[in-house]
Amino acid sequence: MPDTDATPWLKNTWYVAARSDEVAGAPLGRTLCGERMVFYRGPDNQPVALEDFCPHRGAPLSLGKVSNGHLVCGYHGLAMGCDGRAASMPGQRVRGFPPIKAYPAVERYGFIWVWPGDPAQADVAKLPDLVWGDNPDWAYGGGLYHIKCDFRLMIDNLMDLTHETYIHADSIGQKEIDEAPVATRLDGDESITERYMSNIPAPPFWRMALRENGLADDVPVDRWQVCRFSPPSHVMIEVGVAHAGHGGYDAPDHVKAASIVVDFITPESETSHWYFWGMARRFRPDDASLTARICEGQGKIFSEDMEMLERQQANLIANPGRNLLKLNIDAGGVHARRIIERLIRTEQGAETLP
Amino acid sequence: MPDTDATPWLKNTWYVAARSDEVAGAPLGRTLCGERMVFYRGPDNQPVALEDFCPHRGAPLSLGKVSNGHLVCGYHGLAMGCDGRAASMPGQRVRGFPPIKAYPAVERYGFIWVWPGDPAQADVAKLPDLVWGDNPDWAYGGGLYHIKCDFRLMIDNLMDLTHETYIHADSIGQKEIDEAPVATRLDGDESITERYMSNIPAPPFWRMALRENGLADDVPVDRWQVCRFSPPSHVMIEVGVAHAGHGGYDAPDHVKAASIVVDFITPESETSHWYFWGMARRFRPDDASLTARICEGQGKIFSEDMEMLERQQANLIANPGRNLLKLNIDAGGVHARRIIERLIRTEQGAETLP
Amino acid sequence: MPDTDATPWLKNTWYVAARSDEVAGAPLGRTLCGERMVFYRGPDNQPVALEDFCPHRGAPLSLGKVSNGHLVCGYHGLAMGCDGRAASMPGQRVRGFPPIKAYPAVERYGFIWVWPGDPAQADVAKLPDLVWGDNPDWAYGGGLYHIKCDFRLMIDNLMDLTHETYIHADSIGQKEIDEAPVATRLDGDESITERYMSNIPAPPFWRMALRENGLADDVPVDRWQVCRFSPPSHVMIEVGVAHAGHGGYDAPDHVKAASIVVDFITPESETSHWYFWGMARRFRPDDASLTARICEGQGKIFSEDMEMLERQQANLIANPGRNLLKLNIDAGGVHARRIIERLIRTEQGAETLP
Repeated sequence: MPDTDATPWLKNTWYVAARSDEVAGAPLGRTLCGERMVFYRGPDNQPVALEDFCPHRGAPLSLGKVSNGHLVCGYHGLAMGCDGRAASMPGQRVRGFPPIKAYPAVERYGFIWVWPGDPAQADVAKLPDLVWGDNPDWAYGGGLYHIKCDFRLMIDNLMDLTHETYIHADSIGQKEIDEAPVATRLDGDESITERYMSNIPAPPFWRMALRENGLADDVPVDRWQVCRFSPPSHVMIEVGVAHAGHGGYDAPDHVKAASIVVDFITPESETSHWYFWGMARRFRPDDASLTARICEGQGKIFSEDMEMLERQQANLIANPGRNLLKLNIDAGGVHARRIIERLIRTEQGAETLP
Repeated sequence: MPDTDATPWLKNTWYVAARSDEVAGAPLGRTLCGERMVFYRGPDNQPVALEDFCPHRGAPLSLGKVSNGHLVCGYHGLAMGCDGRAASMPGQRVRGFPPIKAYPAVERYGFIWVWPGDPAQADVAKLPDLVWGDNPDWAYGGGLYHIKCDFRLMIDNLMDLTHETYIHADSIGQKEIDEAPVATRLDGDESITERYMSNIPAPPFWRMALRENGLADDVPVDRWQVCRFSPPSHVMIEVGVAHAGHGGYDAPDHVKAASIVVDFITPESETSHWYFWGMARRFRPDDASLTARICEGQGKIFSEDMEMLERQQANLIANPGRNLLKLNIDAGGVHARRIIERLIRTEQGAETLP
Repeated sequence: MPDTDATPWLKNTWYVAARSDEVAGAPLGRTLCGERMVFYRGPDNQPVALEDFCPHRGAPLSLGKVSNGHLVCGYHGLAMGCDGRAASMPGQRVRGFPPIKAYPAVERYGFIWVWPGDPAQADVAKLPDLVWGDNPDWAYGGGLYHIKCDFRLMIDNLMDLTHETYIHADSIGQKEIDEAPVATRLDGDESITERYMSNIPAPPFWRMALRENGLADDVPVDRWQVCRFSPPSHVMIEVGVAHAGHGGYDAPDHVKAASIVVDFITPESETSHWYFWGMARRFRPDDASLTARICEGQGKIFSEDMEMLERQQANLIANPGRNLLKLNIDAGGVHARRIIERLIRTEQGAETLP
């Protein structure tokens, strides 16, 4: 039987902990999956993740400094090795010092990834395979928001884009989203929600993207949204528009503007998470100014969700026993939650019989 | 026997929820009597009060918009009817959606009133009858403060005006208040505290009021304060001064300046409330500039009570078992609390035998 | 057996409650040892400490005013005597009013001291005897910080000055501190930690002090730190440098710069305290400008500890069962904690057999 104290997130998996550039000179303290961690670069510039707790007197190691690949506590100078064992301390023999947790950490695709569960099971082969990652044909830009709601409310948000019509009415929303049928399907451990709209006007964000691609922005377009959830909590959304009548999603590149909305959602606590949002695109990948403009626009759009999500969370806390509706538009999120729950049971060695 | 989880306020009664002008275009979210509500104007501009909880996914409806008399959720577009039932939602059949609470609401005297208890018992005939309300011979001006203390501490405050000598020393306080005897009496479900002072100097606020009435402000006056509590938590205070020797409270209008201090005190939680304060006057009712000046002065005076009340509340929370004194000056508030407690027992169908 | 609800601080002892200049015209409200107190000056300007709770309706007396040596409640005018009994109230007989707690309070060395425990045991003879206090040969300057951590973490901090190398690297820290052996000893109810460094460069703060003493600042010095804990929570640290080779700590005055770091640490709650820090010096005691400059420098240095201590406290709260290391450098703090614990048992009349 599952542990009733179980957290609602998977543990034996890779989460995005930070953007690569966040872990530079000074150590970075951050709570992920309920655990307070410190991130820094050890020998050979490799990322290291430790408990943010000095074994000497409990000071936060994140207030310390990195010196010669060791993290030196800013209180009394204990130097930690990247294995969670004290390496040295002025005037002390540290051999008997109790170790602290060391979390498997790896850098990939411009992010630091951390494995909060059993280190023995950590495997870089289990990192997601991202077509746009570390690929010169693609450009990526993004940001990070701290949001005070259950990470699953963010998954729900991203797996049902009808909300764009309401929350993002001025940028990517349009009434045609509401009117288009949505289809949800499962593909292994992934949940996929698709919506296709034909022969509609492009909303402001996409008119901009058409122009940036050298395409007319005042003609009817076909628009698509393919939201793909994969464990533990990633949502990649293929989005785009093509001049109408050229095949939509399958249209050739020269008549469309397309990109991937990238969402890495890392739980902090049961009611808060770190939201790494961004966009990967295959057009004009070397145009840094375009990347910055897209990122700024996307940052504004995604910030519009925050108040709604945080107030929704507050409402759910105040109404604990209340059932929510599960409509067809919610199916993508509902399936994502079931996948997470099933994998948590597996993780706990307590998979139920079929 | 009364429910031991009972709240300290009445439920089957009308409370002021908002000033009329607060419920205009955008919906207004506000917690009253422990329940989070949303207020908006439905068909025919009538005020509507619903639970601030969308039956779809728990989003706060107060982040939505009003469209054609329906409140449309800002997350996924569910449109609520004023009866608490979903009216429509793009692409959905809403007939089976669970309803949310709809609270009886009515507009009167420039306020939106709400009935948080059993809707079947709501009756507009139970609204208070206010001589100055919707009456062209009177002018009213006022404001709203959110105060972090039990609403009954505010009732105590208003039913014992000796505090004016100390908290409001620079405006309406004077030592003669302390020195004048106070009389408290019951009149049905009302508690009344009266104090009359003869042949005293007028304090600054009342000198201003005399001047505004075209009366000398440097002559002795008779002053009166008649505080009237009525359930659930209203306190109306007849206040005024008359040139001394003309009958005081009963003096003819041309030698006095008189008004009614209006206090609607609406519980938010057990340790916070909404304080709708104001003043109604029968002189120069069309002088909007005078109304604004009085309102500004009163706002300053009433803000002086806030720190005292909030810190008193903090002291009482830190000293839960401690008895407070009930002096003669406290009798008005003590009677008000007893009236509330008796009516709560009645409300719970558990009136004790006499 | 000790009371399991016991607080971690002594009660029958004197604590610094305020600097003398903090208790001037208006009363001062402050929570010490878990009790909310109000301080003011009564008859003959003597300091008085009472519960900050008016026996009438629980208002905080610290919002009141002092009048003729009585503290007059700012709500309804009850006047308190310095014995915790109501002295008068307009229109009331106060003889039967319940008293509030009056805490023994005394002024000495520029501070107001309070005795939070049994008043019958209060004795001014138990005040610490401070060589620099009320002594014209010495000057004192200092300040007050409110710090959100257990007062014992501050004692630990001050009894182990190896942290200077890390936290105060730019002012008083230097690697030679780490490298010098530390000796800890007990002297009755005192715990003493000593460290002596020979023939080292002076760090910035001490170069300044040498110059202020008219001494060369660019020659090798001998440096000393003698940290002395005494109950309930005082730490006095003799610090100084002398030109090398003249006897160090015992060198004659004309070749050294020396002072006493003064730390009065008064618990507020189990996770917060009031930190009265300062420095007493025997050179140029009449130079007020020098006093101000030293105080400013010391204030900056001591503020560097705050984030570390508060975050250490947060870490300990989040990891309640975790053992901390007790190294030789920690011995001073460890002994201080044991002394406090032993005296608390004595205080509770439950001293264990040796």
